[in-house]
Amino acid sequence: MTQPFLSLLGDIPTVTDPAIVRRKSRDFYWYSPLLKTLLDGLHADCLVVPRDEADVLAVARAARQTSTYLTARGGGTGNYGQAVPLHGGAVVDMSALDRILWVRDGVVRVQAGMNMLAMDRALREHGHELRMFPSTKRTATIGGFIAGGSGGIGSLVWGGLRNIGNVLGARVVTLEAEPRAVELRGEETRAINHAYGTTGLITELELPVAPFTDWQDLAFSFPTLAMAARFARTLAMQNGIDRKLVSLSDGGLLAYFAPLRDTAPAGHSIVIAMIAPSGLEATRALADAHGGALAYHAGTREAEDDPGRIPLYELTWNHTTLQVLKKDRTYTYLQAAFPARDTLALVEEMARLLPDEMMTHLEFMPMDGEISCAGLPVIRFTSTERLKEIIALYERNGILIANPHVYTIEDGGTHRVVSPALAADKWRFDPAGLLNPGKMRSFAQG
Amino acid sequence: MTQPFLSLLGDIPTVTDPAIVRRKSRDFYWYSPLLKTLLDGLHADCLVVPRDEADVLAVARAARQTSTYLTARGGGTGNYGQAVPLHGGAVVDMSALDRILWVRDGVVRVQAGMNMLAMDRALREHGHELRMFPSTKRTATIGGFIAGGSGGIGSLVWGGLRNIGNVLGARVVTLEAEPRAVELRGEETRAINHAYGTTGLITELELPVAPFTDWQDLAFSFPTLAMAARFARTLAMQNGIDRKLVSLSDGGLLAYFAPLRDTAPAGHSIVIAMIAPSGLEATRALADAHGGALAYHAGTREAEDDPGRIPLYELTWNHTTLQVLKKDRTYTYLQAAFPARDTLALVEEMARLLPDEMMTHLEFMPMDGEISCAGLPVIRFTSTERLKEIIALYERNGILIANPHVYTIEDGGTHRVVSPALAADKWRFDPAGLLNPGKMRSFAQG
Repeated sequence: MTQPFLSLLGDIPTVTDPAIVRRKSRDFYWYSPLLKTLLDGLHADCLVVPRDEADVLAVARAARQTSTYLTARGGGTGNYGQAVPLHGGAVVDMSALDRILWVRDGVVRVQAGMNMLAMDRALREHGHELRMFPSTKRTATIGGFIAGGSGGIGSLVWGGLRNIGNVLGARVVTLEAEPRAVELRGEETRAINHAYGTTGLITELELPVAPFTDWQDLAFSFPTLAMAARFARTLAMQNGIDRKLVSLSDGGLLAYFAPLRDTAPAGHSIVIAMIAPSGLEATRALADAHGGALAYHAGTREAEDDPGRIPLYELTWNHTTLQVLKKDRTYTYLQAAFPARDTLALVEEMARLLPDEMMTHLEFMPMDGEISCAGLPVIRFTSTERLKEIIALYERNGILIANPHVYTIEDGGTHRVVSPALAADKWRFDPAGLLNPGKMRSFAQG
Repeated sequence: MTQPFLSLLGDIPTVTDPAIVRRKSRDFYWYSPLLKTLLDGLHADCLVVPRDEADVLAVARAARQTSTYLTARGGGTGNYGQAVPLHGGAVVDMSALDRILWVRDGVVRVQAGMNMLAMDRALREHGHELRMFPSTKRTATIGGFIAGGSGGIGSLVWGGLRNIGNVLGARVVTLEAEPRAVELRGEETRAINHAYGTTGLITELELPVAPFTDWQDLAFSFPTLAMAARFARTLAMQNGIDRKLVSLSDGGLLAYFAPLRDTAPAGHSIVIAMIAPSGLEATRALADAHGGALAYHAGTREAEDDPGRIPLYELTWNHTTLQVLKKDRTYTYLQAAFPARDTLALVEEMARLLPDEMMTHLEFMPMDGEISCAGLPVIRFTSTERLKEIIALYERNGILIANPHVYTIEDGGTHRVVSPALAADKWRFDPAGLLNPGKMRSFAQG
């Protein structure tokens, strides 16, 4: 059925082998038992692998001409089915657009398909590093992160991807009647930020970078969740300590953390931090004062560069749940935005309300100028009904849930409303609705 | 009267010329008409200029032997009479201890008397810069800043000097019976932090540094204080914009700002910001969206390196008041800590309550994990009584005042209570009470 489309692509690499196409039609949606039911078995009809922007433009033109659906793919590490084509068509594998174009004045211009670890290593040559990255840094692409992520390691300092200043520009191939590459600047990039590739095919990104720092992975163990949470929040608030990550996992999660389970007492709550060398002494003193014991210390990049080791950030953010799922598929998770007021009391209250079904996992970061935390609680899945009850329980306690068990952009947000702005971008750049169809509720064709 | 003391100093440079000694006995206490009355005319009997730590030790031993008071001096830029000897004795001019000892892993070890501009320039060779500095950077010393300051340009990102992690270590010559140099680490450095040199003679400091950034001075003008304040607070909260300073001065202050008064409309409120090149586009867009107009843009260091020009940070923090005082000595100022809640409403309320006597000046920075602001309102001085009323008015509105019209450590704090911890440090390091006598209320000799 995609033969007319493929015939227009000239020498652009394509794949029709069903096994490969099916594999490249999946992402990490299976974290969610609900998405697993909805998305298992869905796949594209073919895969195209553009080598440069000219190829992407040719793909876009061919898609317009033949009304072929296109679903962009980076590393395939999304958790909400962003990369799963709901209605067939072609997956556009962007990973061959993998070069840094320039670095200057603390800004990098990069092709969208570049792997984030490779990008971070290349930035190091310039004395820089990524401001923020997902826990899937070793496999994710920068374009996939911008199109499907929201923040991660580094957000403690720099905020999330949607915060002003974290995405300076994007070059996007449109699916207009005459596809073209357009440059979006500043706030215009909201059109493609966390839009799951529904509004254009991102070919380049312009991003501010951070100064290269020789981050140190630290883990501290605490006898109680309350002690760990108090330390984590206090550490997160220390502007005087140069830090990239403060993550908390409760005693139940430790059993799933290979690098830590033999070095920390069983059942102890764990605070993982990435700290600059200049902050080590102060961090250790602060942990001491809060009753924590050092359970692990190694250079982040030493572990990152060794395929046999695990940098501690791979125990944080969405990897926390993954470490559990590797051993026990009966778990799933939620995404919770804790308010900055009474954060710790709420953390304890939720642990009290869900003693057997929930393991506490928090990522500290600023929200609206205040240090708060995102919760990524690991939940034992029993039924869809019970999961809905748990979501309602969080929300009754004033904790907003960004539901990771849905595949549309809107339903995954904390407000779940259609967005006229998003729809306007869609109408402008993809009026025929060919890009990742079914993922944007705000767009309903007339 | 200091002859016995001087005779013990060997070849250590000393000065007894009264004009020089008097000049070196003053600081910027005259910002305060109250301190001016109290401190004018007070002076040391001599000046000693140690060349290294051995000299400082010799000075300390001589002082112990002869019961001579010692008042340490850096650049003499303090505002609370920190460097004014209340009871004569010797001023110890630390400015010959002016070398960086080492820089590694994002940490600098520096002699206490080093000028902060020279230090910043030296750090640049290593790809670093000062985390924070006072508006007097061009004349202040690092030791004076730690001993008498509390924060400044850079505190928006790194917090204040008292925040954990901003002072890693200090080497201090004590006035014990047998003076010696002791190393204080981490929290132990609280003994000398903002202690006005009452607890020891600081010879070395170990401080974390920031990555060198080519900061850009920006000033935006706004028709109203409310518009300017809204923009300033929003900008201060943007973790995604790499920024070092966000300062607001109301329309009345513009007339005193030489670099801006011809480029911004008269009477407009001004927001001054230091922004990294990567954040310029986003900052300008944000200012546009808030109704601001760009009034100035230049590289911070270009202006800093030119004695004929003024880097915009010399219109901020304690320099704002100085710019006014240069033209009109009837003004003085206060130091106010605005709460993070309802900050802007309180800013407007205070402007409403003091329409003729107060010009609004705010410096944005985090307090306890939240972006708030310090106010340094410029106040028309009429009487001590009225100044007390104004202080009471601020405090009735929930804004704590750190009174800059007093010369003791305790009275200048927001809580004005004696500190057993400070007294303990004093008893430990200077049991005879020879260091800067009269400045610490917590210490009362038995």
